[in-house]
Amino acid sequence: MDLKQSETIKNLLIQGNKVMIVVMKNGASPGEIAETVKRIKALGLKAHVIEGTERTVVAAIGEKREEMKEALESGDGVEEVMPILAPYKVASLEVKPEPTVVTAGSLSVGGKALGIIGGPCSVESEEQIMNSARVVKAAGGTALRGGAFKPRTSPYSFQGMKEEGLKLLAAARDETGLAVVTEVLATDDVDLVANYADVLQIGARNMQNYRLLEAVGNTDRAVLLKRGASATMDEFLLAAEYILNEGNPNVMLCERGIRTFESHTRFTLPLASVTYLHHKTHLPVVIDPSHGTGHAYMVPDMAVAAVAAGADGLIIEMHPNPPEAMSDGYQSLTPEQFDQTLARCKTVAGAIGKSL
Amino acid sequence: MDLKQSETIKNLLIQGNKVMIVVMKNGASPGEIAETVKRIKALGLKAHVIEGTERTVVAAIGEKREEMKEALESGDGVEEVMPILAPYKVASLEVKPEPTVVTAGSLSVGGKALGIIGGPCSVESEEQIMNSARVVKAAGGTALRGGAFKPRTSPYSFQGMKEEGLKLLAAARDETGLAVVTEVLATDDVDLVANYADVLQIGARNMQNYRLLEAVGNTDRAVLLKRGASATMDEFLLAAEYILNEGNPNVMLCERGIRTFESHTRFTLPLASVTYLHHKTHLPVVIDPSHGTGHAYMVPDMAVAAVAAGADGLIIEMHPNPPEAMSDGYQSLTPEQFDQTLARCKTVAGAIGKSL
Amino acid sequence: MDLKQSETIKNLLIQGNKVMIVVMKNGASPGEIAETVKRIKALGLKAHVIEGTERTVVAAIGEKREEMKEALESGDGVEEVMPILAPYKVASLEVKPEPTVVTAGSLSVGGKALGIIGGPCSVESEEQIMNSARVVKAAGGTALRGGAFKPRTSPYSFQGMKEEGLKLLAAARDETGLAVVTEVLATDDVDLVANYADVLQIGARNMQNYRLLEAVGNTDRAVLLKRGASATMDEFLLAAEYILNEGNPNVMLCERGIRTFESHTRFTLPLASVTYLHHKTHLPVVIDPSHGTGHAYMVPDMAVAAVAAGADGLIIEMHPNPPEAMSDGYQSLTPEQFDQTLARCKTVAGAIGKSL
Amino acid sequence: MDLKQSETIKNLLIQGNKVMIVVMKNGASPGEIAETVKRIKALGLKAHVIEGTERTVVAAIGEKREEMKEALESGDGVEEVMPILAPYKVASLEVKPEPTVVTAGSLSVGGKALGIIGGPCSVESEEQIMNSARVVKAAGGTALRGGAFKPRTSPYSFQGMKEEGLKLLAAARDETGLAVVTEVLATDDVDLVANYADVLQIGARNMQNYRLLEAVGNTDRAVLLKRGASATMDEFLLAAEYILNEGNPNVMLCERGIRTFESHTRFTLPLASVTYLHHKTHLPVVIDPSHGTGHAYMVPDMAVAAVAAGADGLIIEMHPNPPEAMSDGYQSLTPEQFDQTLARCKTVAGAIGKSL
Repeated sequence: MDLKQSETIKNLLIQGNKVMIVVMKNGASPGEIAETVKRIKALGLKAHVIEGTERTVVAAIGEKREEMKEALESGDGVEEVMPILAPYKVASLEVKPEPTVVTAGSLSVGGKALGIIGGPCSVESEEQIMNSARVVKAAGGTALRGGAFKPRTSPYSFQGMKEEGLKLLAAARDETGLAVVTEVLATDDVDLVANYADVLQIGARNMQNYRLLEAVGNTDRAVLLKRGASATMDEFLLAAEYILNEGNPNVMLCERGIRTFESHTRFTLPLASVTYLHHKTHLPVVIDPSHGTGHAYMVPDMAVAAVAAGADGLIIEMHPNPPEAMSDGYQSLTPEQFDQTLARCKTVAGAIGKSL
Repeated sequence: MDLKQSETIKNLLIQGNKVMIVVMKNGASPGEIAETVKRIKALGLKAHVIEGTERTVVAAIGEKREEMKEALESGDGVEEVMPILAPYKVASLEVKPEPTVVTAGSLSVGGKALGIIGGPCSVESEEQIMNSARVVKAAGGTALRGGAFKPRTSPYSFQGMKEEGLKLLAAARDETGLAVVTEVLATDDVDLVANYADVLQIGARNMQNYRLLEAVGNTDRAVLLKRGASATMDEFLLAAEYILNEGNPNVMLCERGIRTFESHTRFTLPLASVTYLHHKTHLPVVIDPSHGTGHAYMVPDMAVAAVAAGADGLIIEMHPNPPEAMSDGYQSLTPEQFDQTLARCKTVAGAIGKSL
Repeated sequence: MDLKQSETIKNLLIQGNKVMIVVMKNGASPGEIAETVKRIKALGLKAHVIEGTERTVVAAIGEKREEMKEALESGDGVEEVMPILAPYKVASLEVKPEPTVVTAGSLSVGGKALGIIGGPCSVESEEQIMNSARVVKAAGGTALRGGAFKPRTSPYSFQGMKEEGLKLLAAARDETGLAVVTEVLATDDVDLVANYADVLQIGARNMQNYRLLEAVGNTDRAVLLKRGASATMDEFLLAAEYILNEGNPNVMLCERGIRTFESHTRFTLPLASVTYLHHKTHLPVVIDPSHGTGHAYMVPDMAVAAVAAGADGLIIEMHPNPPEAMSDGYQSLTPEQFDQTLARCKTVAGAIGKSL
Repeated sequence: MDLKQSETIKNLLIQGNKVMIVVMKNGASPGEIAETVKRIKALGLKAHVIEGTERTVVAAIGEKREEMKEALESGDGVEEVMPILAPYKVASLEVKPEPTVVTAGSLSVGGKALGIIGGPCSVESEEQIMNSARVVKAAGGTALRGGAFKPRTSPYSFQGMKEEGLKLLAAARDETGLAVVTEVLATDDVDLVANYADVLQIGARNMQNYRLLEAVGNTDRAVLLKRGASATMDEFLLAAEYILNEGNPNVMLCERGIRTFESHTRFTLPLASVTYLHHKTHLPVVIDPSHGTGHAYMVPDMAVAAVAAGADGLIIEMHPNPPEAMSDGYQSLTPEQFDQTLARCKTVAGAIGKSL
């Protein structure tokens, strides 16, 4: 297929969602093409002829079933019939069946060893972030989280320490060796954040900020992509596709809870996302039990459950002194709770042939 | 407090949801009562005077904070101030802090050993249910499920084998020793089903069928109460309260997934319900990963995750031949898958100090 | 088709949801039947042969497209191909294209004149219900609502005045001529409630209480069926089908709001349900803006909007003194507000060629 | 209050959500301040002392009730107690009780006359957009919509004609006089889009793209802010606050449907948002029945219902030839349907004292 054909099919794929490509032989006659179109229509599908520089392909749009593939393959002048199953291609298991392991400094996510990202919601001071890093390191965590640019519901809320916060994160890495995971909010900040961070986090609110996805796709930093609070799985994987499509293969998918009618938790954490994503994509899956529940007392159980469900990593909020946290204190573990949670996770990981 | 006072408070509790009871001393003067009312109002609360045969109590309706309690307790003529925290009382941890272990024949749920209920969605034939029971028994399950009365979305669907199905379940118990768990749909059927079953299941659609709740509350059978697909936790616990209030203490709560915008799963399974319920009630919690996901391939991971999260039991659909199941075949495990799933659960249970 | 064939198809329809019936000619040969099966499979559909006393029919299960119908109709031995579109049959516009007008005493719903049901959540006293009835009558309402049997989330809440309440409703009808709409909670109460009421209301919690649906389907009373808070439209229409299937054609569908993540309203009221239902069923559609919003101040706007959207009726909570209501006072209109709301509805109804 | 105090209160407001400000008299003694703190705590609230250049204020964080205000105002050294009710301030009715009328070229939204924005999802060609503009104009619409920069779920979809599209929109305005409403996706494009458009649309996916909100807040263009598919009302109003806070007062709020479990509509359209927003903010409210339902056949009813509910404007997708639309064809009206819909809206608007 030539480029124009490929582009046309991409568009069809997205709009129609279910496409089979009938590749005609080089030199197929107009009659053979017409016959192929007829057969496609007889199957209840729409046919879209795409002429190319070398050969013609016909897109069959609608359902895709094995019987249909066979029925079309038997036609004269047909070389091959290719069902294209997922609208996301680069992220798809069809394209790359083996799991992707994303590595960024001390953090590795996707292999036997789980990646554990811990730290406060926001970087608040040198003392706070240094203490946090030491706790994470001592407990067996493999990366440090902390927000320097904070997306806040209100324009009047604390918006983060910005570059000063990034410098403190880098200093914490210098001391502890922990990789730094921090959110980037805007295309203008991508270079700055990438200067300091090992992993660029895309927050749930920005999951469909496509320019930002493209921008982080053009860096050489790993990306932690959080699921939007009401994003479907297709939307989530297509957001990842925006990043992958720019040439950055190091994407981790993070389930952090969805918005439902439930009010006893901040969001509803669907751990089945781990299983679903492992069936659809080679990208590793990280669970955020802190945002996923919104209550510190629920975090340990959900962290352990995520490990048992097969998650590749965890991102957990921990603060040296949660009641004084400038944001999200109610869902932050204390250092002691963080330590105990990781110990529990380690036990379960060991039981299922993984490690922390 | 006398009965009439108690009834009044019950009503207030439900309507106002947050109530403190100021118990006046026997013989408190009208002036002291008036002063108490004044203090309550000064705290921003509503006051409701309930005179009794022996003494007067004043309900303070609104928020409940420790400071308020103290402020009120210092009043003249006040004997005691009791915050009543939960609208469900008998189910509440405040009333009974130690976990309840529900036992019904071979099934025990709420202790160190998990209760594992397996079997087909519907009883379809003697061969099918006998085979199912043998598989459950061999895999280490502790009870057999199987629907004889089926609640079906359509009036034209298979409605179950009814009493014939119950007899087959009892025969399977005779052979394997497994306790029988089966759904009861209507008050008229309660006695019949209770004749054969060890555990009466209340389905999600009937979670707020209050007459049915009362009816099973008046039997001596254990009850497995499924959460409604859009029930809040308060609604769920109050449904349990209907059963407990009739004098039947053997209630198991079953989380089976909620209705959300997600469509890649049949329902969304919130495992945080385990943690939440363990913080609120002494009743044991059973997880249904079959309805909770709607896809057989997701069931094993979610079963294991539920164990890790601290669930007291599992109810899993298994069918000797899922593609031929008359209902819910797509979410039923094969015997082999069931066996493997229980093996995985056993490993994780062992790691966290429990057993299967 | 004979009865057994019809039953088989009903089951397929529900399970497979999309079915075309290929009716073979009387005396079609085994070869012709085999050929039909082959053609069905070539279209990517499953084939299910159902032999009958007179002739064979083959169910084609899967998608239904016009092209497929044509492709199958051209086969030898085929008499007719019938797509069966909806899983609910009696409720379907395919079966009865003209709108159903439900009449019960003074209430008529489904014609040019809107049916307006007003009154308190619960019957509380003779004075309260009599006053309510007079207000409803004076404002132009056509039926009186009032709960005598109340489904309550908590076992400790006021459960209604029961038969005494029914008698008061009947007395209010005697004085004002207004038809009485009241909820029935349990099969055991159906006869009693039907003795007093013109319309039996099935509440949202009982929408899938199938025995109750069957029981009201066996009375000669009209039924107001409320949508469950998380029921899909198919589930809603199939619940109606349970009633219709027992021989009671007088069913009104009532949209009363669904459970979503929104918390500024009690439920989310999707007025598009009016349009959807009018495209799918001949049954009339009533909107409940009181439960649909949960706030009295929102009720008038939503009542008027429902009229504009084409609703056939409204059911509105009104209480002589809302702050003293024993249930749902916050969403009840005062008599003045009720009167003004109906005046606004009348104006809009007039503008779109309807009347109040 | 000085600036630092104001900032501190802003932060508290957001984090604590419910704040009363006790303004101490100039020169209040430390003892008076301590006494005020004590009184606040006795009410069950948290106290936060904020010293300033001129006077001290004490924030009382928690519930806000009239009785509490009175209790605090009686204290020595207290000048004033100000409850701050809404976390969004500039958008709040408390700050500006009279409705805001937003005017941008031919479009005026917020007064007696409704603003009607019509046009295709995407600008596709000169002919298409010119035809669209003529249809909108002839039908009585007051502004033209059309996407030049398209946010697409997939990176492989048509992303819009970009600047060429903007030029075509401007040409359509030149011919018809209709104001141009078009989406801006990224901060980098704001100046470019503002060069051509009268109204900058912020799409649902970008409702919490705070940098973009700030960027459009710094233009002199009116802004149409769409509600995110799972945004709460507070989040929606705070997103508006980001724009207002930059000095741009011309913000229209657009309800376009929320994500729920319903699948017979693309989104669920909660028309109660109109009533709610009119009770909370002076900003005008526009309804989008096209995205709100996702089906052309539902759009007319929902448009009329929105008018009846009191919406200030409508934004409706119309395409000269919906089946050929490059995006969203299934929810686009034909020119005839658009014309008829506006005629129906006009009738209802007239009946309620408004005009089209």
